[in-house]
Amino acid sequence: MNTLRRTLFATLLACLLSLPAEAQEIIRHFPVPATVSPQLQTLIASPAPDYWNFHPRDRKEWKEWTGNFAQQLEKTLPNLCSSLNVSISSERLGGVPVFIIQPKDLPESNRDRILLHFHGGGYVLGQGLSGTQEAILMAGIGKFRIISVDYRMAPDFPYPAAIDDAIAVYRELLRTTSPQQIGVFGTSTGGGMTLILPLRAREEGLPLPAALAAGTPWTDLSKTGDSYFTNEGVDSMLVSYDGWLGEAARVYADGHDLKDPMLSPIYGDVRGFPPTLLTSGTRDLFLSNTVRMHLKLREAGVDADLIVFEGLSHAQYHMNPDIPETRFHFLELARFFSTHLKEH
Amino acid sequence: MNTLRRTLFATLLACLLSLPAEAQEIIRHFPVPATVSPQLQTLIASPAPDYWNFHPRDRKEWKEWTGNFAQQLEKTLPNLCSSLNVSISSERLGGVPVFIIQPKDLPESNRDRILLHFHGGGYVLGQGLSGTQEAILMAGIGKFRIISVDYRMAPDFPYPAAIDDAIAVYRELLRTTSPQQIGVFGTSTGGGMTLILPLRAREEGLPLPAALAAGTPWTDLSKTGDSYFTNEGVDSMLVSYDGWLGEAARVYADGHDLKDPMLSPIYGDVRGFPPTLLTSGTRDLFLSNTVRMHLKLREAGVDADLIVFEGLSHAQYHMNPDIPETRFHFLELARFFSTHLKEH
Repeated sequence: MNTLRRTLFATLLACLLSLPAEAQEIIRHFPVPATVSPQLQTLIASPAPDYWNFHPRDRKEWKEWTGNFAQQLEKTLPNLCSSLNVSISSERLGGVPVFIIQPKDLPESNRDRILLHFHGGGYVLGQGLSGTQEAILMAGIGKFRIISVDYRMAPDFPYPAAIDDAIAVYRELLRTTSPQQIGVFGTSTGGGMTLILPLRAREEGLPLPAALAAGTPWTDLSKTGDSYFTNEGVDSMLVSYDGWLGEAARVYADGHDLKDPMLSPIYGDVRGFPPTLLTSGTRDLFLSNTVRMHLKLREAGVDADLIVFEGLSHAQYHMNPDIPETRFHFLELARFFSTHLKEH
Repeated sequence: MNTLRRTLFATLLACLLSLPAEAQEIIRHFPVPATVSPQLQTLIASPAPDYWNFHPRDRKEWKEWTGNFAQQLEKTLPNLCSSLNVSISSERLGGVPVFIIQPKDLPESNRDRILLHFHGGGYVLGQGLSGTQEAILMAGIGKFRIISVDYRMAPDFPYPAAIDDAIAVYRELLRTTSPQQIGVFGTSTGGGMTLILPLRAREEGLPLPAALAAGTPWTDLSKTGDSYFTNEGVDSMLVSYDGWLGEAARVYADGHDLKDPMLSPIYGDVRGFPPTLLTSGTRDLFLSNTVRMHLKLREAGVDADLIVFEGLSHAQYHMNPDIPETRFHFLELARFFSTHLKEH
C-alpha cells in the first residue's frame, strides 16, 4: 500500500502544480557514483541545463539563444588560455575563418604535426571563439598545435555549409602539410564531422589524414541507436533527442535525408579509414552513436580504439581542466596522435 | 489527466493482482534496436529469465537450482560441438578437473598456443560440462586449443576455492608451456577470475600469462559502479544486483570483504598486466564493471582494449553461434590472442 500511496501522492502533486509532467518525468535520478574523482562527482551531480528542452520557433529565437550561449562561454576562455599557457590567433584558411591554438611550450616532436579541430554544438552552437574550448584543452594538456575551424552553421547556413568549410580548410592545409602529419579531432557534432571528413575527402580525391579522434560523435542524426532510448533522461547534458537536439538535426539538415552519410557518417563506407579513437560515457545519450561506429570500423578492418568513461554523460570530459578525467582524456588523445602522426 | 488515470489504473491493478510490484517495476522496456542483426534482435526481445530474482534460502535450494541449470545447458552442448567441429575430453591438471576443448581443424600456428578458460555463473552456476559453452564457441570459431577449468564453487566451496583451483591449473600448465604462449579468457565471473589470476600469480611468484580477454567481468562484487544503478532493469540477463546475483556474491565470499582484490580485482594493483581485451554491451549491468577496469588498466599503462556491443545485455555475445555478433566477438578474441601469444 505504501507504493500506492506514494504514487498517488506524486501524481496528484504533479497535477496540482501543473508541471509539464511528461517532460519532467523524462529526467531520471541516480546516485552519484563514488567510482569517479570528487571533481567529476560534482559535475555529475549538476542538474541538466535548463535549455535541454528548448524548441526555438524561428530564426530569431535560434540566433538569440546561440548568441547568448557563445557570449557566456567566451567569457571563460581568457582564463582557460592563461592557466594552460596557450595562445590563440585567428586566420583564414581556404577562405574559412580558423583559430590557431598552440601551447607556448610546444614540444620539438610536435613542431611539424598539426591537429584539425571541429567544435561541437549540434551545428548551431559554438560560433567564433566560443567553439575553441576543447582545442584549448588539447593544446594545453596534449601539447599539440591546432587549427580549430569556425565553420558556418544553421539556421543561416544549413547543410552542406559546415562540411564544405571543413573540407576547404583541409584541402588548403594539404598544400603545406603532409597528410601523415595531420590528425583530426572533435566532440559531438565535431566528432561527427571528424568522421565525415574522410568520406568527403575520398569523394574529392584527397588523401586521408593520419588519425581521427572522435569524442561521443553524432554519427546518426536520426533517432536511431539503442542509447537514444536507454539513456534518455539518464544523460544530464543532452537528456533526450526530443529536446533542442532533434530540432538542431532538422534545421541543419534542411530537408535532406538525416541518414545521408554526409550528415550521419554511420551510413558511410569506412573501409580504409585511418586509426580512430572513440570516446563516450556510461550515461551518454550518444553511447550507441559511439559504439556503433567503433564496431563498424573494426568490422571494416580499421584500427579503432574505444574509451568509455564511468558515469559520464555526453561530452563531460571536455568541460573543466581541473577534473582528473579531463586530463586523462586529453593525454590519451596526445598519446594516440603521437603514435600515429609522423614527426617529420 | 490521462497520466493520472493510467498511473492509478496500473497501481490498482498491481495491488489487486497482488504482484510483487516493486520487483516488477524494476524491469524497464525499450524498443528493440534495429541497429543490430535480426538474430540478435530476437535475443534482445526475449524476456528476462524467470530466475533473475531467485533468492535461495538454503544449501538445498542452491544445489537444486544450479543442478537443474547445468542439466538444461549440458543437453545443448553435443549439438554445439558437432556443428562447430569441436572435440572435448576431460582430464585433471594440478589436481583440478579440466576439459580440453579443441577444433578438429586446429591451425598450425595455434599448435603450441593454449587458452585457459574460466566459465561464468556467479561462482554458483556452470558446474561440469555446462561451463564449457563459451570455450566450445572459442574453439570452433576462434580455432584455439582451450583448457576450461571446472573449478569448485559455492555454496559447498566458497572463496578462495575457485581461485585456488584456477592457480593450481595455471601453475601446472607452466610446467609444460611458456607463459608467452598462454592466454586467459572468460566471461562474467570467468572474466573476473581472468583478472584475478595475474594478481594471484604475482603473489605466488609465477610469471604472468601473455594476454587476457575478460568479457563483461565481475570486477566488483559489491554493488559499486554506476551501471549497477543506471542499467538496473535495462539489462535483461541479470536485471539487478538485488536478484540472485547479490546472493551469489555473499554465498561465495562467505564473510570475506567483497572488496578484497581476490574477489573484486578492480581493487587490485594492475600495473604490469599483459595486454587485455574487455567486452561489454550498452545495456549491460556490468558496463561499469568493464569500463572501470579498462580505465584503470590504461591509467596503469597497460595495453587495454575495449569493445562495447550495441544493445547487448550481460554476456549475450556468447550464447548462440548463429548470431553474427557472436562470430564477430570470437573472431576479435582470436585476432587478439594471435597478436599477443607467441607462435612457437
